[in-house]
Amino acid sequence: MLNERLNWRYATKKMDAARKVPDEKIAAILEAIRLAPTSSGLQPFEVFVVTNPDVRAKIRAAAFDQAQVTEASHLLVFAAWDNYTEARIDGVVADIVAQRGPEAEAAVAGYYAQLKGMYLPRSAEENFQHAARQAYIAFGLAVTAAAFEEVDATPMEGFDPAKVDEILGLTAKGLRSVTLLPLGYRAADGDWLVGQKKVRRDLDQLVSEVA
Amino acid sequence: MLNERLNWRYATKKMDAARKVPDEKIAAILEAIRLAPTSSGLQPFEVFVVTNPDVRAKIRAAAFDQAQVTEASHLLVFAAWDNYTEARIDGVVADIVAQRGPEAEAAVAGYYAQLKGMYLPRSAEENFQHAARQAYIAFGLAVTAAAFEEVDATPMEGFDPAKVDEILGLTAKGLRSVTLLPLGYRAADGDWLVGQKKVRRDLDQLVSEVA
Repeated sequence: MLNERLNWRYATKKMDAARKVPDEKIAAILEAIRLAPTSSGLQPFEVFVVTNPDVRAKIRAAAFDQAQVTEASHLLVFAAWDNYTEARIDGVVADIVAQRGPEAEAAVAGYYAQLKGMYLPRSAEENFQHAARQAYIAFGLAVTAAAFEEVDATPMEGFDPAKVDEILGLTAKGLRSVTLLPLGYRAADGDWLVGQKKVRRDLDQLVSEVA
Repeated sequence: MLNERLNWRYATKKMDAARKVPDEKIAAILEAIRLAPTSSGLQPFEVFVVTNPDVRAKIRAAAFDQAQVTEASHLLVFAAWDNYTEARIDGVVADIVAQRGPEAEAAVAGYYAQLKGMYLPRSAEENFQHAARQAYIAFGLAVTAAAFEEVDATPMEGFDPAKVDEILGLTAKGLRSVTLLPLGYRAADGDWLVGQKKVRRDLDQLVSEVA
């Protein structure tokens, strides 16, 4: 069932600018992002749903003029935390206590204190790289969730992150953009990739057993 | 449907060492990994399915003695390419041509030549970080696929990658371990996390609209 949806999807090259994705489908995709597993439950990223046409045009210019950025129905921008901080980790503990009750604090306080001891002395760059990896888990789930909703998507790394950070004011928020995800509906007759066979390495080139 | 499965799963803290995951479920999880989207279709990682008990015991010792590493039915190790090389990128193009036919070469040769021009001058570390992010997409899909198969999983970063690389001989293969994924069945009465509410940030703390 999952693999059927993964086989259906492909990196859509041409979006139908006239078709909008219904709100409930966008909500389901955002919920998959929210439910994505991340290291120590930190969810060290934010997602921007860009519908403003002027902002989309600016991002397109910073993304090698890829047309899906403006022609898709919605554009998601994934931005990872630029660093781990005491306040951010305390915020995660506060969420756990708020959602599981005050008795949860004793169960997790030591774990997150240890995590601070490990993460806070590291460089911002090392922590950002770690946060970015977590964002990629959610990014992959967003692509998958779109496929379940029969929504097309184009996972994109081809853009200038510094420019997108500036367009969206991310630096002031302590964020760095890592990926874009146009969501919409394929315009099949303008899409060179739509009819092509999905190419993947054979399983025996990807997986080894250590028995 | 996807979100129902994501709500079902949790990072299993105690596995039932007596229960084995059937081969067809492992195959479905590996197929999801194979189908995961990756940047330019590079699939810059490999996965090791470790069933050998001695190897599992060594990896457990390198993973803060986390019991799931040996008590789970199967252990997956995700290892990213340590660098991009001409041969590796040529291999991807060869796969495309083999699977789509010789006429596909003209459509993609320029793209991958440009990719080489961008990636090959970069440091091995920068390329590894990029490859690791792709492995995380597949890692997230593996966790998701396990949930669809009603298989429990424990996504793990808490281990010494250098030691795991040595145990599995990864350096000689041009690989670096990035994550572990024990797969099995929960031993619910020994698992402190199984009854706890799943904690996630509220949607309005995670997602912003730019309208």
